[in-house]
Parts: sequence; structure tokens; C-alpha cells
Amino acid sequence: MQLLTVGSVAFDAIETPFGKSDKIIGGAGTYISLAASFFNRDQALVSVVGEDFPKDVLRKMEMRGIDIQGIQIEEGGKTFFWAGKYHNDMNSRDTLETELNVLGTFDPVVPPSFRNAPFLMLGNLSPQVQRSVVEQMEVRPKLIAMDTMNFWMDIAMEELHKTLKLVDLLIVNDEEARQLTGEYALKTAAKRIMELGPSMVIIKKGEHGALLFSENQIFYAPALPLEDVFDPTGAGDTFAGGLMGYLSAQENITFEHLKMGVIVGSALASFCVEKFGTQRLEDITKADLDVRIQDFYNLSQFALV
Amino acid sequence: MQLLTVGSVAFDAIETPFGKSDKIIGGAGTYISLAASFFNRDQALVSVVGEDFPKDVLRKMEMRGIDIQGIQIEEGGKTFFWAGKYHNDMNSRDTLETELNVLGTFDPVVPPSFRNAPFLMLGNLSPQVQRSVVEQMEVRPKLIAMDTMNFWMDIAMEELHKTLKLVDLLIVNDEEARQLTGEYALKTAAKRIMELGPSMVIIKKGEHGALLFSENQIFYAPALPLEDVFDPTGAGDTFAGGLMGYLSAQENITFEHLKMGVIVGSALASFCVEKFGTQRLEDITKADLDVRIQDFYNLSQFALV
Repeated sequence: MQLLTVGSVAFDAIETPFGKSDKIIGGAGTYISLAASFFNRDQALVSVVGEDFPKDVLRKMEMRGIDIQGIQIEEGGKTFFWAGKYHNDMNSRDTLETELNVLGTFDPVVPPSFRNAPFLMLGNLSPQVQRSVVEQMEVRPKLIAMDTMNFWMDIAMEELHKTLKLVDLLIVNDEEARQLTGEYALKTAAKRIMELGPSMVIIKKGEHGALLFSENQIFYAPALPLEDVFDPTGAGDTFAGGLMGYLSAQENITFEHLKMGVIVGSALASFCVEKFGTQRLEDITKADLDVRIQDFYNLSQFALV
Repeated sequence: MQLLTVGSVAFDAIETPFGKSDKIIGGAGTYISLAASFFNRDQALVSVVGEDFPKDVLRKMEMRGIDIQGIQIEEGGKTFFWAGKYHNDMNSRDTLETELNVLGTFDPVVPPSFRNAPFLMLGNLSPQVQRSVVEQMEVRPKLIAMDTMNFWMDIAMEELHKTLKLVDLLIVNDEEARQLTGEYALKTAAKRIMELGPSMVIIKKGEHGALLFSENQIFYAPALPLEDVFDPTGAGDTFAGGLMGYLSAQENITFEHLKMGVIVGSALASFCVEKFGTQRLEDITKADLDVRIQDFYNLSQFALV
């Protein structure tokens, strides 16, 4: 098993200026695994859902090469539910409802067969829960990446610092990088983060692309200028999933591979925002993705003429 | 004469969180010509100053290959003066003082020897003044580029539309592109602008780089992640000057040249913000610039691995 992901599987209800979704399937773990499956069909997801979660969604995951034996189904429990509404500029949103349900007491157990996974992706969860997963690994993964959010910086900064010590790559957005370090300049913020543990940092800037930092190297990945962003939900997780799926399928990890991983993640995220939820990601093929990656290439490559 | 620039020459007084400048030399025309001089020493500046303007600054311009016979020196007049203060994030500023002085009645006269310049750069001035310059040209330039700002959209939108019909390339920032078109998505805004006249549009996004649009092609130029921005004054004009200086020194203008011009402009702008006013641009050599251009290349180039 090449890639182990730990992250939420959820129901989402989304409102955007373009419309309103039904109660659809969401969650960081869902987006990460789905995006990673474009590159790696030998992966596993550790998560928790309630009895109300549709079995056919789990079957669809399996068909994409995602091992679901680590998804606990809590008897009598209800699946995590999030409802949110995006503002007109699509850059900010209000949470309308959060029902933690079975996620509130989630204590992930990594099945023994996953404990030597060479790639580990920790989706946004409490830093304690993220750390408990790292501690369950029998072999130190080649690469541990994690996401986090402002919420944990507000209520569990100390725990977050402990977890950061254990990971190789932190993937956050610009606001989160600033809050975590107290630095406004992203280059300085990345330096501070690398002093906390991770040897690599990715700072996502939404419509402004993403920055990758590794030692003294920096890569600026563009974002595709889009005419419409239909629904940004899951774009960040899709980015992380595409990146980790791509990396976990490579023989070794060079800075060139990291750069390409960021482009792959950006390309998948650019599809994700085109429809509600996971819909667009489920529709596209690897060939569609390759065309989009070429778009990113054409968008940002130049010759020293 | 390859490149004709029309733009203000001014005194600036600048406050930033890092300090306060003396009354220093500024103005769009100054920055544009200075930046262009890294590539083209056969250029001219049309502008106006008062009797208070230091002669040695004009001599320094001449030494950089800038023909100054089109800079009117108004007897008894005072040079345009601007004082401003940047906020902590460096992305916004307050104007503390504006004394238009001789610029208030500026009616540019293009000397006959400049009227067949193949490249024309219209710095930010009233759209009427910009148009009068275009109308004085005897031979239609190969490329006319212009800058503008929100102020003219507020008070002279109709005049601005008339002037836009005459130019090939509009260079604005993201806010200006949005105000000009009423479109939030920059790709859509660029389309609308191209319906107004220009066949090419550059939208500057500050620390997020710049977008170049030409027909159906798009180029996303990164911005160098900087730890400190000391003084952003003149960065936009420096960008335009670097671009136009570079283009005016090429045999022909392909999309590859436009992309490289945007990189050159971005590289020069990244120097501009490192010290107050034009100081840093006056200190650096072409070799320094080449190193910086290579930094932009390394920052954004990747291989499809």
C-alpha cells in the first residue's frame, strides 16, 4: 500500500452565488483519496462515518483503488455534516451548520496492513488525532504531509507544534501560514514553519497560485485564470490529494517531482471548483487531466529570449 | 528614436512602516524611462517640470540615453508634488498631499523628431492628454501602450474609452481592471478590455505576479516572494518601462517576446521596491538584472516529469 490518508468523510450542503447543492458527499479524506486515485490505485483511507452513510459511495471508492477497511462505520452514529455559504467573491464563506457527529469522538485506528505505508497524508483534523496516526506507523513513512487550519491554531497551538515536529511537508493557505507564524511575508512565514519541523512547506494562495518551499528553493505555481468558480469546496484537499497521489507513484522525490506534484494538484483543484462537490473530479479522465496540466505548462513557461 | 514615453516627472515624499524619504525624484515618466534605459538608450521623454526641478537630474537622464528636449521647463512654475503614506501591509496607501502645479495645465507637445517613434508609452495622465499625444504622431507606432488609474474611471470614463480605442496594450492592476469592466474574474475583465480597443492587456497583481492576455493566449508571470518591500512607489511604472524598453529593442514582437517583456518588467519592479524612490534602479547594473531574471526563471519553470 503506497499512500495512506487520514481525513474526514462527510455530508456537505453548499450554497454559492450560482446555486445550492443537495446534501452531497464531502470531507477532506474523500477529496484527497479521489484526487490521488488519478495516480495511485494502491491507497487506503482511514476515517469514520455513521450508519447513515451510503454504502454505494464506499463501493465507488473501492473501485478507484481506495482500500476502505480503515473507514469505521459507527453503529447508530450519524456522519459528520457541514453546511456553508460562499460570498460573492468566492474567497470567503460562512459556516451555516456543523454537526460533528461521529467525527467528534474519532480515534483513528490504522489497520496493521497500512502501518508501513511509505506516504502518509494527514487531512485537517485535530493535531492530537493527526499525531496518534503518525505514532501508529511501524515504519517511518518516506513522506508525511499534513494540512491544518486556523481553528487549531486558536485552540491547540501547542499540540499543533508537537505534531509539526513529526511531519515533512505542511500544506496550508496564506492566511494560515500568517497566523501560524505571525509573519506577513510568505517567504518569511515559510522559513519560520521550516524551523518548527517540516523541511518543506506549500502555501496555497487560491486564485493566485501556490508557493513551494524546500530548503533554499522556491517554486511559484500559477493558478489557471478561470472565468467562473462554481464551488471552491474541497479544492485545497484535492490539491493535496493530487500532489500526494503523484508523489507516491514516483520512484524517488526530487525538487522537480515536488514542482510537478504542485502543478498536478493545482490542475486537479482547477477541475474541482467547476461543479458542486466531487462531481467534476468523478467525471474527468486522466486524459482530461493531462490536457489541463499542459494548460498550466503553457500558462507559465517562457524562454529567455 | 525607438521609444517615446509621456509621463509625469515629480517630487515625491514617501512614508512607509520602514521610514520616511526626503523630497525625492519620482513621477511615472521618470520610472518608465529609467527602467527602459536598461534595454534602450535611444528613447525620449515628454513631460513638464517647474523651474525648481534640479538640472543635474535631467543631465543624469541624458546620460542614460533619454532625450529630454520634450521635457518642458515652466518658468516660475513648480514641479508636481505627491506625498503618500503606505499602510503596514504595503498594499494600500493614503495620499497625504497632491500639488499638481505645472502638471495641472500640462499640454504635451511632441517634438517633430519624436513623431515617428515606433514604440509609444503613455504613462498615467488624463485620457485626453494621452490621446493628444497619439494624435501628434506622424507615423502610427508599431506599439502603443498605456497605463491609467481608477481616478480617470471615476471622472472621465467616456474620454478613457475614446483613448482605449487608439492603443494596443493596456497595463493596469487588478482593481483597475475590475473597475473598468465591472467584471470580477480577471480573465473576463481582460476579454472586456480587449473589446474596448487594446489587442493586449496586462493585469498586474502586485505580490501575486501579473497576467498577460493576447488574443486567446495567457501568460502568468510570477512575482518574486520578497521578505521585505521597502517602498512600492513606482513599481508599476518600472514594470511598464522595463517591458517597453525590452520590446523596443527587439526585431519583432512575438508572444514569446511579450512574455519575456513581462518577466523583465517584473524583475525591474522587484528591484524598485527594495529602496526609496529610484535609488535601487540607479544602483543596479544590467548584470544584476540578468541574475534577477534568472531567479524568475528558476522560480516558475518546471519539467513535465
